[in-house]
Amino acid sequence: MANQALTNPAVDFSEWYNEIVYRADLADQSPVRGCIIIKPYGYELWEGIKNALDKRFKATGHVNAYFPLFIPKSYLDREAHHVEGFSPELAVVTIGGGKELEEPLVVRPTSETIIGESMAKWIQSYRDLPLLLNQWANVVRWEMRTRPFLRTTEFLWQEGHTAHATEAEAEAETLQMLDVYADVAINEAAIPVIKGRKTETEKFAGALRTYTIEAMMGDKKALQSGTSHNLGQNFARAFNIQYLDRGNQLQTCWTTSWGMSTRMVGAVVMTHGDEKGLRLPPRLAPIQVVIVPIFKTDEEQSLVMAAVDGLKRALLDADIRVHVDTREQQPGFKFNDWEMRGVPVRLEIGPRDVAGGTVVAGRRDMPGKEGKRFLKQENIAPQVRDLLTEIQASMLAQATTFRDANTFDVKTYDEFRGVIEQGGFARVWFAGSDADLTKIKQETAATHRCTPLEQPGGSGTCFFTGQPADSVAIFARAY
Amino acid sequence: MANQALTNPAVDFSEWYNEIVYRADLADQSPVRGCIIIKPYGYELWEGIKNALDKRFKATGHVNAYFPLFIPKSYLDREAHHVEGFSPELAVVTIGGGKELEEPLVVRPTSETIIGESMAKWIQSYRDLPLLLNQWANVVRWEMRTRPFLRTTEFLWQEGHTAHATEAEAEAETLQMLDVYADVAINEAAIPVIKGRKTETEKFAGALRTYTIEAMMGDKKALQSGTSHNLGQNFARAFNIQYLDRGNQLQTCWTTSWGMSTRMVGAVVMTHGDEKGLRLPPRLAPIQVVIVPIFKTDEEQSLVMAAVDGLKRALLDADIRVHVDTREQQPGFKFNDWEMRGVPVRLEIGPRDVAGGTVVAGRRDMPGKEGKRFLKQENIAPQVRDLLTEIQASMLAQATTFRDANTFDVKTYDEFRGVIEQGGFARVWFAGSDADLTKIKQETAATHRCTPLEQPGGSGTCFFTGQPADSVAIFARAY
Repeated sequence: MANQALTNPAVDFSEWYNEIVYRADLADQSPVRGCIIIKPYGYELWEGIKNALDKRFKATGHVNAYFPLFIPKSYLDREAHHVEGFSPELAVVTIGGGKELEEPLVVRPTSETIIGESMAKWIQSYRDLPLLLNQWANVVRWEMRTRPFLRTTEFLWQEGHTAHATEAEAEAETLQMLDVYADVAINEAAIPVIKGRKTETEKFAGALRTYTIEAMMGDKKALQSGTSHNLGQNFARAFNIQYLDRGNQLQTCWTTSWGMSTRMVGAVVMTHGDEKGLRLPPRLAPIQVVIVPIFKTDEEQSLVMAAVDGLKRALLDADIRVHVDTREQQPGFKFNDWEMRGVPVRLEIGPRDVAGGTVVAGRRDMPGKEGKRFLKQENIAPQVRDLLTEIQASMLAQATTFRDANTFDVKTYDEFRGVIEQGGFARVWFAGSDADLTKIKQETAATHRCTPLEQPGGSGTCFFTGQPADSVAIFARAY
Repeated sequence: MANQALTNPAVDFSEWYNEIVYRADLADQSPVRGCIIIKPYGYELWEGIKNALDKRFKATGHVNAYFPLFIPKSYLDREAHHVEGFSPELAVVTIGGGKELEEPLVVRPTSETIIGESMAKWIQSYRDLPLLLNQWANVVRWEMRTRPFLRTTEFLWQEGHTAHATEAEAEAETLQMLDVYADVAINEAAIPVIKGRKTETEKFAGALRTYTIEAMMGDKKALQSGTSHNLGQNFARAFNIQYLDRGNQLQTCWTTSWGMSTRMVGAVVMTHGDEKGLRLPPRLAPIQVVIVPIFKTDEEQSLVMAAVDGLKRALLDADIRVHVDTREQQPGFKFNDWEMRGVPVRLEIGPRDVAGGTVVAGRRDMPGKEGKRFLKQENIAPQVRDLLTEIQASMLAQATTFRDANTFDVKTYDEFRGVIEQGGFARVWFAGSDADLTKIKQETAATHRCTPLEQPGGSGTCFFTGQPADSVAIFARAY
């Protein structure tokens, strides 16, 4: 497989994506409709994202818990918008232990309802607030069209669920978690993201407001990469989540929820990948450094492998994730293979390097001569550490430059159509209605990605309606 | 709740267990039949077990992956014993996206079948072996009688699945993972366990041989705490898991599977708990040290809290999990509360301690005066670290002494009945049949827990049949 050329992403990005996901062993197809198997290499990438998130959740005072996979159907019915939004996507268990169930159980598509029920029980007084929960779980949504990682029937995610005494605290929490997502995307995955607010039509079913981080993929399409919802009092009312305030008055809570999923694995692939395959940001790469020993004779082999062992030990001791490729293949094959798998740094070492006390380092983010340099074998760990830091920064810079170069401020619907057709984000003053959004989508296949939190200030003229507008919005075709 | 006395475990262990699980906030009841909600304190305990296992799995060369929750019904049917064993316990999804499914999907009770299908795809030659996979997942078994953590319809676990070239390698893997489980039980959970082999009737549905670790709970009943299965070629044949050997001949693989679950949380509770509540082994305790500040006046408060802050920082810096109880409650209430929650070390500090540069340490495993000692505030971390190590060892020693004191070598069925009736493990020479085991179970409610791997050697006379026997077995009533 590895010697067959990848489809060029510039020619067919979608085909390239499917190929690389399977060839780089991130995932495999499964016998279950719309579900993938996450292979070890892909799972380790997810573990990196998971750990980065979990650390931040705990640092902001959240605790993990676990709620049942199954939700009684009647629970979903309690919040009208919620059930309307999720009903078409449900998987339903009707048989348990050989018998038809009296009340069908829904396989959770998300857990606001069943967690809401517990919140109502656990919260009595203002002393119990805020309640800051998170859950790592699998969820199921019966999707019509699926793509590995981006949209699968079952996926892994975390779902945060919090309850607060006031609207202001709930809003602050919603925005804080959006910041956490942006931090992980930018500083771990090297994916520049735009924080913004979703429109009424695009918000979560049952939410007051939905915030999102939007990223630009390699084909200039947008990917919603994490969302944070201020649920207002909608779920608190539906599930009687109430508390006694300091004056002993019964009050209704304000709740939030927020989620990031294995979709982020797809985001990493589509943001950084190129015609040679994956490019993984060092902070998340399951293998940060691959060592390729080069030798011809047995004597050379024992010389080289002794040096390799020393390098490996030094890197492991510095907590650098290193792999030595000892397969019986030609170096050229190995170079291509590890490039395809996106390993950030390749160390080549042959007899001459051993003699000279050097090793050749190659950068995945900067192929060819430009990315090559000699490192000293002595004190290898800090040199590699610096290189990894440099690559991480360079990948974020490359992705940011790409995103910015493909983001256009447009004033008219004609210009807008042009940008959308050629690919990229259109940044526009916008004051249109839901009906206008539907029309724009029908005519251009572009959707309103978000109203960025960071605004230019002042006001302008809506590109679509010609009416005065007081905020800009990002539009793009999206996954 | 906390001020109401717990049921005495000596009087009603089962009632005590239910009370403590809920009162110590390990779990809550859920609206879904047989499912619990794992609350943050219980989940953190599980995270401790999970991390201890995951570290060991990785150190022994295993990698994590993730397979679908849903399994096509037809997959289970392929291994005759497997489907027979699990059929009565299945939850079945019959509706997806509003439509009746053509083939019902089973919610995984375990994943041998769906992972077997992938193994067959992934393994081509001897170079692909061994394949050492693990999965962290939720599974569902429609149980008739459920108890929090011990037996729930949905539970969390890890399931290892490996494939090997030879029977000997598969057997070595099966035993290696049994050792890993024993290591975690003994050295992390402070639960002494007996490693042994299950009988033909008690083995996993589809296995060649099942090994187990068996622990004695506080009521002298046995708890199977982890199992490791040599699956022989049963699943490999059913799913065509084959490889080309060095001689280019097609061979059938040998597979194993092994699992440990949230049941271990119940094992910790039932091994160590006492009439005051939980007792958590320091290595797994979510909170290892609780600091209770004691003061009356505002002046005292600021003096004490300054010292508390210093202690807290010093302990956190040493990676000791510490919590400061600043609630507006009396110290006595707090002492009881943290005893109930099983925190291993309590540090009390009042104005006199501040003046003297001391702090009073109390041990949960050794209540009253005996467990109290003065520590110096200066250099607190190593003193507490030593104390935690001492407590960990002492808890294992206590549990081992208890287990050994309640394990009896018996020679006759009469003695056997006596031991089973009074509670405890009966260790007997045994050479009976499956029918004998059924009879023993009917008459005494005791089951064959395992044939220990560690045998006295020599031979004896079967306590039940009077026939010559070449191994001893452990019998007990069990969960």
